[in-house]
Amino acid sequence: MRIGIVGGGQLARMLALAGIPLGIRFSVYDPAPDACAGVVADLIQGDFDDLGALKAFARQCDLVTFDFENVSAPGLVELASRCPVFPPPLALSTSQDRLKEKALFAMLGVPVAPHCAVPGEVPGDFRFPAILKTTRFGYDGKGQVTVATRQVLTQAHAALHEAACVLESKVPFDRELSIIAVRGTDGEVRCYPLTENVHAGGVLAVSIAPARVSAAQQRHAEAIAHRLADALEYVGVFAIEFFDVDGQLVANEMAPRVHNSGHWTIEGAVTSQFQNHIRAIAGLPLGDCAALGYSCMLNWVGSLPDRSAALRTPGAHWHDYGKQARSGRKVGHVTLTHQSCRALLEILEARSTTGLAGPPVELAKGLLHNYLQR
Amino acid sequence: MRIGIVGGGQLARMLALAGIPLGIRFSVYDPAPDACAGVVADLIQGDFDDLGALKAFARQCDLVTFDFENVSAPGLVELASRCPVFPPPLALSTSQDRLKEKALFAMLGVPVAPHCAVPGEVPGDFRFPAILKTTRFGYDGKGQVTVATRQVLTQAHAALHEAACVLESKVPFDRELSIIAVRGTDGEVRCYPLTENVHAGGVLAVSIAPARVSAAQQRHAEAIAHRLADALEYVGVFAIEFFDVDGQLVANEMAPRVHNSGHWTIEGAVTSQFQNHIRAIAGLPLGDCAALGYSCMLNWVGSLPDRSAALRTPGAHWHDYGKQARSGRKVGHVTLTHQSCRALLEILEARSTTGLAGPPVELAKGLLHNYLQR
Repeated sequence: MRIGIVGGGQLARMLALAGIPLGIRFSVYDPAPDACAGVVADLIQGDFDDLGALKAFARQCDLVTFDFENVSAPGLVELASRCPVFPPPLALSTSQDRLKEKALFAMLGVPVAPHCAVPGEVPGDFRFPAILKTTRFGYDGKGQVTVATRQVLTQAHAALHEAACVLESKVPFDRELSIIAVRGTDGEVRCYPLTENVHAGGVLAVSIAPARVSAAQQRHAEAIAHRLADALEYVGVFAIEFFDVDGQLVANEMAPRVHNSGHWTIEGAVTSQFQNHIRAIAGLPLGDCAALGYSCMLNWVGSLPDRSAALRTPGAHWHDYGKQARSGRKVGHVTLTHQSCRALLEILEARSTTGLAGPPVELAKGLLHNYLQR
Repeated sequence: MRIGIVGGGQLARMLALAGIPLGIRFSVYDPAPDACAGVVADLIQGDFDDLGALKAFARQCDLVTFDFENVSAPGLVELASRCPVFPPPLALSTSQDRLKEKALFAMLGVPVAPHCAVPGEVPGDFRFPAILKTTRFGYDGKGQVTVATRQVLTQAHAALHEAACVLESKVPFDRELSIIAVRGTDGEVRCYPLTENVHAGGVLAVSIAPARVSAAQQRHAEAIAHRLADALEYVGVFAIEFFDVDGQLVANEMAPRVHNSGHWTIEGAVTSQFQNHIRAIAGLPLGDCAALGYSCMLNWVGSLPDRSAALRTPGAHWHDYGKQARSGRKVGHVTLTHQSCRALLEILEARSTTGLAGPPVELAKGLLHNYLQR
């Protein structure tokens, strides 16, 4: 079996690394000649809007999935006419449009932040500050601006080139959570434990798993994941990001793919999100999502810290994506695993055992402090 | 950094899978155009005795290591003249010759079975039954025959084409154990817990780790590994196979590479033997060798069992080497992991939870039974 992945970045790279031991081979489609998944897959170069090239790519694969989900609707149609496409195009097109996504959440009874379309009428009682987000092609905090008051909305919209947008009230959240779930071709759904996340500059900086949540919160998040997956007839791994507001889960957005906040599952769960995505789309039995102890994932943006210092850190697992250092680019992550969450904090605080340094380390210490006090 | 691996089989494949997340790229050298490591490395085709091709291969690598250790001495010289070679040629040439290997064990005070060279004088008190093994190019039970009595020795030697051999008394062992160890470029040595093994037809069938041994036995095995590694100025991972005779360790042989009895470390240890080999030869800090719960590794020879049945088995991790099924060929392994060793046996015995079947499953049940009774 050969699986094609549209997009050849780090997610495709980690999907192939997890899928090769299953006896599956991979091709990736990417405009960049040095796409980092090319090390573990046959790389086919092409633009994401080159319909002919996408079609030719799909022809040589038994099924197609995505590492980059912003493929246009005509591109999806071309792919789906050649071979099975997972997740299904409906899930991709829904998550590509923030208004459609919020409408689906609302239809399924999933709490979301107060929001409205821009351009459009903003209700008189709409609460500011708010965030204006383009409905399409946003990720990692791109395509969004803060709107402090109603008076600066027009100016903010101009900054986003007056694109179709959604205006969302800022939610006074206590923390950010996410759930990673997987649905098989037979409809079985499995969920990983909730993860606690901290973002910096719109990009995920640190994750801790399992999140310190009540059994009821975990059940609620799983119920939402089930409903969403069934509604979209989803196949594969997806993530839902939540705000925790006084113990209530408010859905922020979904991602129809393996997710940065699930990278800890490589070493921290019985089956990684990457292998479970491949198992799901290949029609294989899903794997156990249980956590093995505690994990703390540090995301490296722009450049990597010293590799030897990281590898000397007890329980550290290094993931270099093989990309050139560049401002704002996700270039790797480190996952620390341990049977004790307190030990994770002690390891990061012990200057003698670790030379790991950088913004995510400081954020991780703060998150672990809060975690242990909750 | 680019690491070259001589031999492109499953060991090279798993080395590359473990090394790619460290940011390292791989080339493999193998005579077969479909060598299974070619999926994760650049494959250079060439015969193991083509000195010119080996030299050209080494030139494009920062350092060279092995998946196939029976490279001739001139081949090693060619490689070592072009770039660093790990493990060092002395370790390879020692392990390539069973008499040299036994002499080294003896020099280091490591107990070995009574043995003598054939052709040569067999002492009058030499105990039969014995095993006659060619001193060179033996692996997986190849190049060896049982010799029941002194009277059939000549006939047995003829069956091995009168090659240079070593005759070893059969040791009445209680069980087979092995230790996997790693030595870094700075001389640091780390050892995994001892593993219990069962062979079938000369080929490893099942491993359980950690072995149920006393702390003194573990310390003794580690001391032997240290002595051997230091004597050979070893760099990388190696294995020593032992017989356990009434609680005494008798060394059988060493393997100067990652070893089949260490495959459980991929999921069952903090750092896998594959990543630790790459860390060692790349001059990086060694990783933690501690076991995570209990592991049972089943080796599949000839053909693989049903993949879906295996993946439905709780705690099962599937490793398809991507090789064509062929009699006697190692084609994959499955590792079951669990916090409880009794649970491993229950999982294999529960027909409702697993469709895993085949000779290694029956051998694993027997080994686990003995393990739990010890």
